[in-house]
Amino acid sequence: MPKSTIDELKVLVNTKLQSSRAQAEFGVVASYIPELAKAPQNALGVHIIDGKGSSAVAGDCGMSFTLQSISKVFTLILALMDKGETEVFSKVGMEPTGDNFNSMLKLELVRPGIPFNPLINAGAIAISSIISGATPEARNNRILQFFRKLAFNDRIDYDLSVYKSESETANLNRSIGYFLKDNGVLDGDVEEVLDVYFHHCSIQVTCADVARMALVLAYDGIDPITGAKLIPRRYVQIAKTFMVTCGMYNASGEFAIQVGLPAKSGVSGGILTMVPGQYGIGVFGPALNDKGNSIAGVNLLESISKEQDWSLF
Amino acid sequence: MPKSTIDELKVLVNTKLQSSRAQAEFGVVASYIPELAKAPQNALGVHIIDGKGSSAVAGDCGMSFTLQSISKVFTLILALMDKGETEVFSKVGMEPTGDNFNSMLKLELVRPGIPFNPLINAGAIAISSIISGATPEARNNRILQFFRKLAFNDRIDYDLSVYKSESETANLNRSIGYFLKDNGVLDGDVEEVLDVYFHHCSIQVTCADVARMALVLAYDGIDPITGAKLIPRRYVQIAKTFMVTCGMYNASGEFAIQVGLPAKSGVSGGILTMVPGQYGIGVFGPALNDKGNSIAGVNLLESISKEQDWSLF
Amino acid sequence: MPKSTIDELKVLVNTKLQSSRAQAEFGVVASYIPELAKAPQNALGVHIIDGKGSSAVAGDCGMSFTLQSISKVFTLILALMDKGETEVFSKVGMEPTGDNFNSMLKLELVRPGIPFNPLINAGAIAISSIISGATPEARNNRILQFFRKLAFNDRIDYDLSVYKSESETANLNRSIGYFLKDNGVLDGDVEEVLDVYFHHCSIQVTCADVARMALVLAYDGIDPITGAKLIPRRYVQIAKTFMVTCGMYNASGEFAIQVGLPAKSGVSGGILTMVPGQYGIGVFGPALNDKGNSIAGVNLLESISKEQDWSLF
Amino acid sequence: MPKSTIDELKVLVNTKLQSSRAQAEFGVVASYIPELAKAPQNALGVHIIDGKGSSAVAGDCGMSFTLQSISKVFTLILALMDKGETEVFSKVGMEPTGDNFNSMLKLELVRPGIPFNPLINAGAIAISSIISGATPEARNNRILQFFRKLAFNDRIDYDLSVYKSESETANLNRSIGYFLKDNGVLDGDVEEVLDVYFHHCSIQVTCADVARMALVLAYDGIDPITGAKLIPRRYVQIAKTFMVTCGMYNASGEFAIQVGLPAKSGVSGGILTMVPGQYGIGVFGPALNDKGNSIAGVNLLESISKEQDWSLF
Repeated sequence: MPKSTIDELKVLVNTKLQSSRAQAEFGVVASYIPELAKAPQNALGVHIIDGKGSSAVAGDCGMSFTLQSISKVFTLILALMDKGETEVFSKVGMEPTGDNFNSMLKLELVRPGIPFNPLINAGAIAISSIISGATPEARNNRILQFFRKLAFNDRIDYDLSVYKSESETANLNRSIGYFLKDNGVLDGDVEEVLDVYFHHCSIQVTCADVARMALVLAYDGIDPITGAKLIPRRYVQIAKTFMVTCGMYNASGEFAIQVGLPAKSGVSGGILTMVPGQYGIGVFGPALNDKGNSIAGVNLLESISKEQDWSLF
Repeated sequence: MPKSTIDELKVLVNTKLQSSRAQAEFGVVASYIPELAKAPQNALGVHIIDGKGSSAVAGDCGMSFTLQSISKVFTLILALMDKGETEVFSKVGMEPTGDNFNSMLKLELVRPGIPFNPLINAGAIAISSIISGATPEARNNRILQFFRKLAFNDRIDYDLSVYKSESETANLNRSIGYFLKDNGVLDGDVEEVLDVYFHHCSIQVTCADVARMALVLAYDGIDPITGAKLIPRRYVQIAKTFMVTCGMYNASGEFAIQVGLPAKSGVSGGILTMVPGQYGIGVFGPALNDKGNSIAGVNLLESISKEQDWSLF
Repeated sequence: MPKSTIDELKVLVNTKLQSSRAQAEFGVVASYIPELAKAPQNALGVHIIDGKGSSAVAGDCGMSFTLQSISKVFTLILALMDKGETEVFSKVGMEPTGDNFNSMLKLELVRPGIPFNPLINAGAIAISSIISGATPEARNNRILQFFRKLAFNDRIDYDLSVYKSESETANLNRSIGYFLKDNGVLDGDVEEVLDVYFHHCSIQVTCADVARMALVLAYDGIDPITGAKLIPRRYVQIAKTFMVTCGMYNASGEFAIQVGLPAKSGVSGGILTMVPGQYGIGVFGPALNDKGNSIAGVNLLESISKEQDWSLF
Repeated sequence: MPKSTIDELKVLVNTKLQSSRAQAEFGVVASYIPELAKAPQNALGVHIIDGKGSSAVAGDCGMSFTLQSISKVFTLILALMDKGETEVFSKVGMEPTGDNFNSMLKLELVRPGIPFNPLINAGAIAISSIISGATPEARNNRILQFFRKLAFNDRIDYDLSVYKSESETANLNRSIGYFLKDNGVLDGDVEEVLDVYFHHCSIQVTCADVARMALVLAYDGIDPITGAKLIPRRYVQIAKTFMVTCGMYNASGEFAIQVGLPAKSGVSGGILTMVPGQYGIGVFGPALNDKGNSIAGVNLLESISKEQDWSLF
């Protein structure tokens, strides 16, 4: 089926964004740390980039935000590149959970101590523990450099006030960390592993950065603009599959049916998604729905995807 | 990437089938009713059909078996055609569960009484209750006629001894039915709804029938051989999405990662899958793995899909 | 410690009843069947009987009500008398659940299919299936005769309109029944077992009847007024222990701490309790708290028990 | 009913101990820390003391062991003495759980974050956080002094190697601590609270110490030998009630039916129990059954209680 060019999308996304922005008032901005609570309720931005570097941009794309759970996609990929499928899948499973994003219930009931998948908090913490690097600082640095390459942006960095707040208040993640340790899933020191995790969640980006990172996934691991081979295709495939089955917390099934694209959301209101072989997409809308996804962002993506017939299915 | 023609596949599937058949000895044939227990442990057959009606066939494709849970894909589609998305999704959710296929736990914990999705038993029973038809007989008949049209085979019919055994022994499904009734999900008589459910699970087919039914899904609702429009494209999309996120019980995530195709399995050992736009596929291998899927069948599909690079992701 | 005589109690219970009755407005009368909903919100009655047959009575003791879950204590005892400890405890466990009274969750998680104890619905249904008797009618009759003997009242009988409503609407109990059947706990026909269960729940009594039944337990199985040996002491001990650990749904722990007496409540608002060696007590107050126990009844018992220092502990 | 004197018990316990000791071979000594694993599999000792200070002693009563979970009874009492019922029951509930002793499942499902009762690990950790004292050292010291007074033994002290091992390996308790913190149940620093908890679990005692501590509970808070009033009677009542409903992990219901006495066990193999108004009892048998209770110890108590008709019910 014929799909719009990036130039046609420039018009479309502006129109769609106007109507989707109205949804923001029904959402709630995350407030568990003061830094997130500052984000404006009504903000909504989208950045779509194609393989030649042309972009369709609308709304509040100047704002920066932290990756939060979006980072889990890329630490998974880095862990796969570091350790391979066998070791990664000895630490995390491959199944969606049907539960809240940080439920400890699931940790316990099925395959005790092995997180269901690498995109829930428990799984991402387990993944953080196997990233190569002699020290936490070395691991943090490898992750940051990897993210910079993917975003083709050497200036992206941590939001240290977010990092500090996350680290100080994250008792639930600490609880998960010690639970994993008790079950033999984490080899190192729990606080050190969590420090890696809090760091990569706190990397600050814009919609443009997220779109560029998504573009690499859309082109099977190659940055189509520079031609750089950044990720083996198989690991992109694994990441995209997880994004379909469990990328949008416990609304992943609904997102697959209504949007039909691999995606990952974060509590800051960001969404990374893509049209494979065509576009990388970054969305930012801090007001969240009751599943923890950007309410206006999901609305916008559903609206564009249905009109453009973007679903993979 | 270049994919094999059906003629090339004829050679390939024979080779692959030989090596996958060896897996059957590690599986267990379902035995909760005597009729299923009779299936030969080592049987394995695959039928792949393309849009012009050419087929690649290997192994035990002469054997017939009952659809069991594979039927849930098509009763979901029929319910969507009868009642539309809004009504269907007031009865069942859109999320994978991460749990065993007939867990009652999940019924209770989240959104009490609303089954997580239409492919778990509870969801399929709820779907059976909204198929149009004045009487259970009328509903059964509409389902059977629909399945015959999809399979382009007027002779497919119930295996009445399987139906009878299922109906007599299905205390867990009866329990689920009354639980749904108690939660206001089922409108009619529980026994009548279950009778519809047991009937469509007991429809007897061959790999060729399953492959032809899958072909209609692979071509977005049109039988590419006859040109008949059988299902609106949107409902095929919904069905394929569910097959990706929850078609293979609680190994759906793993199947998505290792095979990457929409699929649905049944306890009799059948698997329906497809390469969208290309092939409909029916597999039969009665020895099951610990997740309830055909052990040799899954092995065969993984092996072919990886070689042919069939994953959607 | 010195405890009041029955004559002193006559004064006390009247005073206490006045103040406890005010609690009734904060409760909710059960309304899942119309017959229960008719009970007056503010009703409260208490009947205390001693070993010589003297009584202290206050409030609405003229009203009759159905035993509901109170009957489970005595069907447990009858099953023990019929089959002995070994067989009974192959069908039900001995542990409190911490869950809602009819939770199916617990059925599944621990020791699949074996109800945690005989006082939850699942356990009581399992018990109903092992009461001796060639037919359901014979079993019903044995139960009714046993209850009449315990209450020393040949006229107590079923409230048939309650029985009929319970039987017609009890989809959750039906669901539990088939779940137990599926797990091999029930030997007979599910509907027949449920019919026995619905019958004994629908036996109509007054506070005086309940107090007399409790008196037999308070005197270790002997009716102290007639001298008749009705229950072996060991089975009374088992029943009283269960009443302490799980007699008041998931407020049993709190009741043990605040009242400290063996007790069993029913959804109709009845409570059976006792002071071992001294008194049998029947209470009726149809307005229930959020745990399903008579809100004014529990308040009254706590108030009297604390003043009289009745706790066993 | 006539019960034996302490002199008659001296003979009895020796006989019973011989036959119960044989059970030890079917149990497993706890081995999660090396210090516990050293305990001899076949050890079994019992010390019964009456209100005049006479004792019946048999078996391996010379051995010392750590209190472990037995300490929870007395920290609960100290917290009640420090803060009163209202504050204590804002931190922990009153209900048995039906689950494993350190299940996090229960923490989450019902009343999120509030432990079901003070005798599960989560509840005891919450209790440790409200013991009065300006510093952890002050709290530890108050607890130790209280335990010394109850045991009438100034020399009881920590087993520091057990304390150190517990503290270093207790990732699950750490996980629980941070989970409680996340839910607002713990006010202070998690590591400080855990340090208090690990300390009181590591207090080293003999059967004689445990029996003397139990004696104080058996006499409603008064040491009958010295006449010292050590605990208000109401708090003893609360403690004894919890010991009946949840003192023996998820075999508490069975222990209530088969033994019928308030009791608390620990993973080191100790059991504290009592015959109210008569005896304090300490048992030590390190081989545990699958519920985590001393297998020979439970057998011994059941055997003596049934013969002596000690059940409260």
